[in-house]
Amino acid sequence: MRSYSVAVVGATGAVGWEMVKILAERNFPLKKLRLLATARSAGQEISFKDEKVKIEVIKPRIFADIDIALFSIGSTPSKEIAPRAVKEGAIVIDNSNAFRMDDHVPLVVPEVNREDIAEHQGIIANPNCSTIQMVVAIKPIYDEVGIKRIIVSTYQAVSGTGKKAIKELQQQVEHYNTGQEMEAVIYPHQIAFNVLPHIDVFTENGYTREEIKMFNETRKIMHDPELLVNATCARVPVFYGHSEAVTLETAREISLERVRELLHQAAGVKVVDDPVNLIYPLALLAEKDDDVLVGRLRKDLTHRLGINLWIVGNNLRKGAALNAVQIAEEVITNQLV
Amino acid sequence: MRSYSVAVVGATGAVGWEMVKILAERNFPLKKLRLLATARSAGQEISFKDEKVKIEVIKPRIFADIDIALFSIGSTPSKEIAPRAVKEGAIVIDNSNAFRMDDHVPLVVPEVNREDIAEHQGIIANPNCSTIQMVVAIKPIYDEVGIKRIIVSTYQAVSGTGKKAIKELQQQVEHYNTGQEMEAVIYPHQIAFNVLPHIDVFTENGYTREEIKMFNETRKIMHDPELLVNATCARVPVFYGHSEAVTLETAREISLERVRELLHQAAGVKVVDDPVNLIYPLALLAEKDDDVLVGRLRKDLTHRLGINLWIVGNNLRKGAALNAVQIAEEVITNQLV
Repeated sequence: MRSYSVAVVGATGAVGWEMVKILAERNFPLKKLRLLATARSAGQEISFKDEKVKIEVIKPRIFADIDIALFSIGSTPSKEIAPRAVKEGAIVIDNSNAFRMDDHVPLVVPEVNREDIAEHQGIIANPNCSTIQMVVAIKPIYDEVGIKRIIVSTYQAVSGTGKKAIKELQQQVEHYNTGQEMEAVIYPHQIAFNVLPHIDVFTENGYTREEIKMFNETRKIMHDPELLVNATCARVPVFYGHSEAVTLETAREISLERVRELLHQAAGVKVVDDPVNLIYPLALLAEKDDDVLVGRLRKDLTHRLGINLWIVGNNLRKGAALNAVQIAEEVITNQLV
Repeated sequence: MRSYSVAVVGATGAVGWEMVKILAERNFPLKKLRLLATARSAGQEISFKDEKVKIEVIKPRIFADIDIALFSIGSTPSKEIAPRAVKEGAIVIDNSNAFRMDDHVPLVVPEVNREDIAEHQGIIANPNCSTIQMVVAIKPIYDEVGIKRIIVSTYQAVSGTGKKAIKELQQQVEHYNTGQEMEAVIYPHQIAFNVLPHIDVFTENGYTREEIKMFNETRKIMHDPELLVNATCARVPVFYGHSEAVTLETAREISLERVRELLHQAAGVKVVDDPVNLIYPLALLAEKDDDVLVGRLRKDLTHRLGINLWIVGNNLRKGAALNAVQIAEEVITNQLV
């Protein structure tokens, strides 16, 4: 079996670190693993299986012997470095917002639109975390009866912001316990024991960029420029796992039984829906589960074609690192490298 | 000026305690304040202004010299004791779910339907916390252009469950800090760093009773049996302040500017909506504010008549104790006692 040289770019970040763990867990066919980061992290070592791998600084020609580079370094550095990596010969799977809406860049969730990978011109974009878990859950319903409109409210974990945000929530609850003042640095307001209706920056129409991403990315992934997505995105004091309250308006009628059946059969989805026994999707469950958890299934009593769902996903894994590695696996399976 | 004998029934609970504080803050015209509770709390003392008031046990004839009794003891005890209090001559303002949907009991949010108080036959019901803050915020829009459908996702604080739930969240974060196991007793699952899509008990159609309350109570308060309310209610690790992501579908078109203007003029509402300066409603802000905070105002991009709002209220005060005291004030102003 062929093996591949893979680089994780941004290996010391919350997502980069998950990428390294997932490559090990899934026994990715590696010839060589290189871990890259900015100068700040250079020299650090990360465990990979039984070895220690040293973090190297990104420098010219470093991608020359890399087949696939998994990027998680944020939009601005990605915009600069990803095209360079492609020129040097690597395929880039980029986790940032930099290329997602670029017409020449496929935006991929393998369970939904793996076929788009074939169109790549060097860069494949990994969607936003809240979008990924939502499209995985709704795709089987979309394929069966169509979906016209989605209303989604998110309950997003701090790990989506990165390691410093995890630390900030930890410190705030520690200060709460010791009676010290809670400081907010990463977020504009205290996140402990609070809810912030604010993720990413605000745009002119009053929506945050996170909300606009859910609108645009869902359309692109689903290949449906008419699909309507009304999103409200909020941060909650949770470390891992994004929760979403989703109301769908389907194009044609579908029974709840059929929705349940479709979700049971769907790849990457686990139906967690036995409320009588207090079983429903929880952020804490997503910490240990790579599937998208779906529950609280019910008919919207206010719309003939309405369905309500509660969707929970591990934002660092399926929402970021795992989806990127799955894209890499598809690239290999389809001999696109 | 006339003064009144008032009893707070359930004075040692989270809401009862707020009721006592609010009676003091608002200089309620009191002839006498009696604090009642179950035998368990009897003998305890609560500060009221400069006095200490002793908790008495509820017993026959105790309501004979009471004009207004504010009840916060839960549905089952309310069902038994409130009718007795009415027979003994008191007007009961009940915070539980016991009488809310009773045709002979007005369900009142003074800013919305104060005129219903006149119909009372001894008991006036205080609505559910999540419903109160929502109707206060949407009423001015309803009056101007009508509302057909509401889609609401809640982010509810643990204080809504009571003092023991506050303690449970405190203990769980303390145990998190000391590395001890987190125990869940009041909630079926850990609430710290988690989101529970489950408030009150599940009903047969998959909705929780909390979600059904929002549907039924909103219709009754607004006097609109056609109004559609699709609710998803979730508990978040927040001590005080319920947040709500609300999407309205109005009956006629309205500009965002006009919505803003109406909300600015509305009693009991504060517009907190300057996202560029990172100003929007927060659960933590509601701890110190009796108004319902409304922000994140934006046109729903997916519906011609859609409006999105983020609504935050203090669940123990406007969502419970304050609304009850405001009803009592209306009863007095309108000489209904």
